[in-house]
Amino acid sequence: MRTAPAAVLYESRQPMVIEEVTVLPPQLGEVMVRMKAAGICHSDLHVIKGDLPMPCPIILGHEGAGIVEEVGAGVTSVKPGDHVIPIWRASCGRCHYCLTGKPALCDMGTEMRFTGMMPDGKTRFRNHRGDSIRHYAGVSTFSSLSTMPEAAVVKIDPEFPLWKAALIGCGVITGVGAVIHAAQVPPGSKVAVFGCGGIGLNIIQGARLVHCTQIIAVDTLAIKEGYARALGATHFIDASRQDPVQAIRDLTGGRGVDYAFEAVGLPQPIEQAYDSLRKGGTCVVSGICRGDARAAINVNQLVYAEKTLKGTLYGSTRPRIDLPHLIDMSKVGSLMLDELLTRTYRLEDINEGYAALERGEVARSLILWD
Amino acid sequence: MRTAPAAVLYESRQPMVIEEVTVLPPQLGEVMVRMKAAGICHSDLHVIKGDLPMPCPIILGHEGAGIVEEVGAGVTSVKPGDHVIPIWRASCGRCHYCLTGKPALCDMGTEMRFTGMMPDGKTRFRNHRGDSIRHYAGVSTFSSLSTMPEAAVVKIDPEFPLWKAALIGCGVITGVGAVIHAAQVPPGSKVAVFGCGGIGLNIIQGARLVHCTQIIAVDTLAIKEGYARALGATHFIDASRQDPVQAIRDLTGGRGVDYAFEAVGLPQPIEQAYDSLRKGGTCVVSGICRGDARAAINVNQLVYAEKTLKGTLYGSTRPRIDLPHLIDMSKVGSLMLDELLTRTYRLEDINEGYAALERGEVARSLILWD
Repeated sequence: MRTAPAAVLYESRQPMVIEEVTVLPPQLGEVMVRMKAAGICHSDLHVIKGDLPMPCPIILGHEGAGIVEEVGAGVTSVKPGDHVIPIWRASCGRCHYCLTGKPALCDMGTEMRFTGMMPDGKTRFRNHRGDSIRHYAGVSTFSSLSTMPEAAVVKIDPEFPLWKAALIGCGVITGVGAVIHAAQVPPGSKVAVFGCGGIGLNIIQGARLVHCTQIIAVDTLAIKEGYARALGATHFIDASRQDPVQAIRDLTGGRGVDYAFEAVGLPQPIEQAYDSLRKGGTCVVSGICRGDARAAINVNQLVYAEKTLKGTLYGSTRPRIDLPHLIDMSKVGSLMLDELLTRTYRLEDINEGYAALERGEVARSLILWD
Repeated sequence: MRTAPAAVLYESRQPMVIEEVTVLPPQLGEVMVRMKAAGICHSDLHVIKGDLPMPCPIILGHEGAGIVEEVGAGVTSVKPGDHVIPIWRASCGRCHYCLTGKPALCDMGTEMRFTGMMPDGKTRFRNHRGDSIRHYAGVSTFSSLSTMPEAAVVKIDPEFPLWKAALIGCGVITGVGAVIHAAQVPPGSKVAVFGCGGIGLNIIQGARLVHCTQIIAVDTLAIKEGYARALGATHFIDASRQDPVQAIRDLTGGRGVDYAFEAVGLPQPIEQAYDSLRKGGTCVVSGICRGDARAAINVNQLVYAEKTLKGTLYGSTRPRIDLPHLIDMSKVGSLMLDELLTRTYRLEDINEGYAALERGEVARSLILWD
């Protein structure tokens, strides 16, 4: 039976524990992945802080890239040695959502996300006491070895650096996808982006890719301005010092922006993003909030100004199609990745990585294995 | 100088006064319309009650149909004797919105709606004391003669009954448009419709036209069930007696509906419509609220379930294209209109018409002239 070092969350609001866990072999239709890079992302932090509770113990981590170590019976799309990106919503390929171009809403993937189990209702991790440890989003990339459904891995070009693949697998695809797939922003548009974290910076990048002419970045931390401008922002508003809605009106001749994106995960910036739209504008929300959070939306603006408020998960992409596209865009130089990575950590320093994330010190940071 | 009987609102929360007003002749690019039918609609009631205040005195009425009486210089699309539907958002044809298929958001039309003036900043109505009287939505269909921009009239087939044209001009196009244009509901969908007034009944009708297989009507007045079923509802939920969100889940195998429509104009039914959506579902709001009303939208449902909340004005249609389409659909028997009309009034009984509307006694009611 294989064992591997992993970061295990035994209780919310406590540090993760780095320990050797047993990783059960892949069953029918499953694969075991040796992780090479894993992203430190805010969605895990919500679980760590207890804002979005999950049953514990659990191995978090939903972004990563690695190499297939072993495959179970019936696996056809990958073989040992293949490079893969684990995707945090496995898609069955047969449900209403998979068949309507929305695999991130797949019933099987959603169920795995909220139960922390494999589709058979069991887990593939054990600690040294033999206790079952839950999976996070089906992929648990904070384990050096992780067993997951074949439906949760996408094979990629083996020449492409795995640390870049890990960045693409969540933050890049979600942010760029919000622009290209969820909002379908046409060239020449004016956009505002509330929140310059891992998703927000890639929304800025997406807006640059589709040739937006005003890309107004908003954050409450002045340190984010440099990251935002590096990725393509044409303006930066420090929302701790000025009203972003008024500032956006001033920058757009009084009208507001065509598209506003929210990547913070709080009601106030969602309301501000919505209020900063022009008539006919669309506000796309990708920020994850506390489960009970509600945004207060002015209804007459909705109707008289025909505004649209829409949520996006995984950038409303089809990861099996769009991850390879993004890798190709990186290879031809369209997509910026080097500029995103601020720090790297070893698995044993993961708690420090999350502390730095919470302090807002980083654009993106990764756990790397040799 | 021509005079004509009109219903003038001198102050909100007071009855309209029926009196002879002077109607100034059409200026450059304007037409004068002799009204033959005018709709009694909730949007005027918001002004009468002061929930959406307008400067007074004003002649309300935004739905109607009539015959061109006189045209000003430069008018090319209509001539005296032509049958027309006045549209409550004139569209200039040249602005961002007119050019992107959203003429209901036209800057000129929007300005007229909120100022109560013609585009030159003046009015074409005077009372017997010579006081200027404002226009409503540019068309003021509660005047037997009304001068308005050419951009606010659509020429229609003279064989088509004008009372039917008046119904189509607001309630039908807004309701059917919400389904066909705003939501673009595909056949086979399951929908819920909150509010069975003039708009809601036509949303039900639109859902029938695009072959929805479950059309769940919701209202707090049991009397609306008959109207709703006549237009195509397959189920009716009395929201004064049961929780509509739970009832809709029960009717849809626990999932919720693909599309939910709100045509009440209150935050609670908007929140309920949103909550009754399945994953990936869209909630379309057409109800007009008090100006400061806000709906409290759960954010994680927005993101994790990729819900969309969108407002629609005038059914997101292009009235110059879609009004003739709807008339044709009535002529071939697809569109039901006889079933919509509950009562007719003469202009002098207009205040009683609004009282009946507020009591919820009618599907649609019209003012008719001989």
